[in-house]
Amino acid sequence: MSDLPDHRIRHAWTADGADAAHLPPKAVRRLTERIGPVRAGAGIASPPEPAVPESLLPSAAGAELAEVLGAEWMLTDRVARLGRCGGLSYPDLLSRRLPGELPVPDAVLLPGDPCQVQRVLEVCARHDLAVVPFGGGTSVVGGVTAARGGKRAVVVLDLQRLNRLVSVDPVSRLAVFQAGVRGPEAERMLAAHGLTLGHVPQSFERATIGGFAATRSAGQASAGYGRFEDMVQGVRLATPRGEWRLGVAPASAAGPDLRQLAVGSEGTLGVLTEVTVRVRPLPVVERFEGFVLDGWERGTAAVRELAQAGALADVTRLSDVDEMEMSLTLKGGWQTALLRRYLRARGVAEPCLLVLGWHGAGRRELARRRTRTVRMLRAAGAVRLGRAAGEAWRAGRFAGPRQRDALLDLGLCVETLETATRWSVLGRLRTQVRAALVDSLRAPGREPVVMCHVSHAYETGASLYFTVLLPRDDADPFGQWAEAKRAACEAIAGSGNPLGTITHHHAVGADHAPYLAGEIGEIGISVLAAAKQAVDPTGILNPGKLITGR
Amino acid sequence: MSDLPDHRIRHAWTADGADAAHLPPKAVRRLTERIGPVRAGAGIASPPEPAVPESLLPSAAGAELAEVLGAEWMLTDRVARLGRCGGLSYPDLLSRRLPGELPVPDAVLLPGDPCQVQRVLEVCARHDLAVVPFGGGTSVVGGVTAARGGKRAVVVLDLQRLNRLVSVDPVSRLAVFQAGVRGPEAERMLAAHGLTLGHVPQSFERATIGGFAATRSAGQASAGYGRFEDMVQGVRLATPRGEWRLGVAPASAAGPDLRQLAVGSEGTLGVLTEVTVRVRPLPVVERFEGFVLDGWERGTAAVRELAQAGALADVTRLSDVDEMEMSLTLKGGWQTALLRRYLRARGVAEPCLLVLGWHGAGRRELARRRTRTVRMLRAAGAVRLGRAAGEAWRAGRFAGPRQRDALLDLGLCVETLETATRWSVLGRLRTQVRAALVDSLRAPGREPVVMCHVSHAYETGASLYFTVLLPRDDADPFGQWAEAKRAACEAIAGSGNPLGTITHHHAVGADHAPYLAGEIGEIGISVLAAAKQAVDPTGILNPGKLITGR
Repeated sequence: MSDLPDHRIRHAWTADGADAAHLPPKAVRRLTERIGPVRAGAGIASPPEPAVPESLLPSAAGAELAEVLGAEWMLTDRVARLGRCGGLSYPDLLSRRLPGELPVPDAVLLPGDPCQVQRVLEVCARHDLAVVPFGGGTSVVGGVTAARGGKRAVVVLDLQRLNRLVSVDPVSRLAVFQAGVRGPEAERMLAAHGLTLGHVPQSFERATIGGFAATRSAGQASAGYGRFEDMVQGVRLATPRGEWRLGVAPASAAGPDLRQLAVGSEGTLGVLTEVTVRVRPLPVVERFEGFVLDGWERGTAAVRELAQAGALADVTRLSDVDEMEMSLTLKGGWQTALLRRYLRARGVAEPCLLVLGWHGAGRRELARRRTRTVRMLRAAGAVRLGRAAGEAWRAGRFAGPRQRDALLDLGLCVETLETATRWSVLGRLRTQVRAALVDSLRAPGREPVVMCHVSHAYETGASLYFTVLLPRDDADPFGQWAEAKRAACEAIAGSGNPLGTITHHHAVGADHAPYLAGEIGEIGISVLAAAKQAVDPTGILNPGKLITGR
Repeated sequence: MSDLPDHRIRHAWTADGADAAHLPPKAVRRLTERIGPVRAGAGIASPPEPAVPESLLPSAAGAELAEVLGAEWMLTDRVARLGRCGGLSYPDLLSRRLPGELPVPDAVLLPGDPCQVQRVLEVCARHDLAVVPFGGGTSVVGGVTAARGGKRAVVVLDLQRLNRLVSVDPVSRLAVFQAGVRGPEAERMLAAHGLTLGHVPQSFERATIGGFAATRSAGQASAGYGRFEDMVQGVRLATPRGEWRLGVAPASAAGPDLRQLAVGSEGTLGVLTEVTVRVRPLPVVERFEGFVLDGWERGTAAVRELAQAGALADVTRLSDVDEMEMSLTLKGGWQTALLRRYLRARGVAEPCLLVLGWHGAGRRELARRRTRTVRMLRAAGAVRLGRAAGEAWRAGRFAGPRQRDALLDLGLCVETLETATRWSVLGRLRTQVRAALVDSLRAPGREPVVMCHVSHAYETGASLYFTVLLPRDDADPFGQWAEAKRAACEAIAGSGNPLGTITHHHAVGADHAPYLAGEIGEIGISVLAAAKQAVDPTGILNPGKLITGR
């Protein structure tokens, strides 16, 4: 068992805080000026010892599960159970830093292959145990909270032992992965074949192939490689009704595409055990670079033009002026002052950073694509910052969660939310969500910063990703964020005519479930409930997520 | 009513045969040498007057429907009913040329807008009437057969009056169409805005936006514009449970993508009344050209390399040697002999025609793309035939159904079927399907020609499209094809482990329904049935299609 990744309870992205990103003192001073008191050590450095109730797993069920798995792969100890009680949203992290009850599962199961997953589900169905599939545990929407959902007990199905690359078809550029393979491992195994998946969400370091598929993940290089659902060609699921395989061809007219029902089902319609994905040759050259556009309108217009001309870089990411300013604030350093002067000299009033990342099969091919894009950007008034600005972003591309840990330690409330919509309402949607967040969070001595970026652009629209930062309200830390989140969701999806989707890539989980009917209609909810009933008649799969109250 | 398209019964693609493509006498002679006796006038030139039973529409239902629609939009006359009794498959056409019963609907309803469609469905649900949505009526899989499905009566819901372009959002490149708009009309209306949809299946001239979406249609320019489901951003459906709207963003992680359940539902989960599609600027330049590759293996390898390098032309279509030979045979003329000599001189033993069609935003942009592709093709050993070869294909791109009429008139059995799979098994699948067709159809004095082409290529695989031609077995014309079709389907999908999808773009209808479980599993069927139960509890929507026996 010593080869299992650490699953001690995570008060933060990092299990022990050892590699949390720390802020330079100057950054702390500037933050205080901007948002209000920032208090080093306010992060409850020594979290309370959480209460772990007795396991409610019935002994008969436990015996059967141990027989299927081998006793050593069924864990009921305190550390194992605490370590899989939920995901990594701000409320999740808060709840582990503050006294109170945690949703601790009754057992942790570690099946070794898809057949064991299937047999485990059958045992759980027979004993009416809730089952929470668990990959990297990086959900920020309550998607892996160990909710009992009225069942006798809840078990977490940790898929980390499903860690194999099952097969590679280099001619068809397809690879079959077991669901528990993490992002870096998947890339390492494919690299041995000269291939890559190209899926790099911020959760890349911990999240799994199964999790990517279950949540419709979108990676930072989505412009070049597509969203994860675009990569999925086939799935194998374990369900209480039996094994279910889908996907025999790249495209089909054989009725509704049920792969698109399995993808995004968040563990409620089955447990993904294998995923067949489209892969590509490893890039030979990579290049990251930065540009600045003056103002949000001009920035999004430029990204729209690139998207509609098929001229996006593989990574294309536009920050608004608040995000760019905050990023400079948190970095500090003399370069920042120089950059500000440089941009002022060029008449840039509201600098919006545009990061482009290129993956190329060769220098010439990359140059060919890049020349066209840069020409369009210059025509749109972009100021080139060069490669250092892009490389700086790339170096920190997975650091967000770690930086959040450092900010939590400083007594701050820091959280993100995201949406997507068509281009023609993108500006309005950003304005409304910003206003909802600022209005709900502003308080005497607390001035929220609301930052926004576009990180996924399509021909017809784009995503919006918001980051909020302000001093925590210690009188009501949960309520402070819950109210802001509610206001933002209402701005996105309220009043019966949604301006955007309730989530572009974070998924539904428990947190967005109340807003799903606004997006897919009551008929859509009833269709999902019917599909669930067909595969999971007793409702043991991930209760309380996606489809609630049914 | 004089403005309604002709809906007399179609014994052929063309209602009256006036513009059926006729074969030159030399072609008839050559055909006879190749496949056996070709008999001019054997096509039952004067079809029998089909029997039309009394309408079973209950008078109470008729009165309510007339009230919703206005009496003039509910047709029960013989011509209107006969004209909507099914689609345009070979068996459909045979059945109208031979004596026997036809599946004639009890009434034809012509709603004027989405709200009327909704109200009509509610009346039909109350009176337990089967409802068959009808667009262009071009189904080749029995998808619009007016089957009663155990109901009291069956009505055809002809959507031709839903003929509006509802709105255009040029910034987001989105257009909302009513479902009954036909291909050419859609393009005409978009062209007024400088836009195009770019969806041109062979059924383009008659088929509708709603039909494209309901059947996951793929157009000849799918490499450039995508399949129809890639274009669909939103749908509005009428269902017995109420109106259902989906699609607020270009992409979303808000659970399973239910748009992909609506798309491909073939009228069984609701009646599409509006479709929001992604549109693009009208191309400024177009260019069609032909190449020849020596042999199927080399040809498909070249197309695969283009697909995987992102270097496909917007139209990319590779014929095997049999299809190329037959196309030359049917054309005749001195050019054919010259071409054969030209290719022999270049050492081409098995000429496979590759047609490329380019749509460009400008000459330079087109030249940039084309240069790269042609360079790759030359490296793959392609022989250039020039623009005339491409333009000839383009000129006849929608003529297939008309040519089929002429061949039917010559007493031939002519039909198509299609599939798709991953690249690594594409060759094997073609061999197996060919063998199944030839073995089942060969008979003394009758030698089938089985032609094949790839018309839709993806990174991970491609489609295969088969055309069969041989003298009709007048002793058992239906059985002759039914047996061949069964053998081909078994080769594709048999033995529990499908080699390819049962249909890449013709849809399921009634004909492929028996094979659907092999592709999506019994669990998949039960999920579809559950979804149908949720939106159509009494099962009035298009009975006998897609999901049968439930």
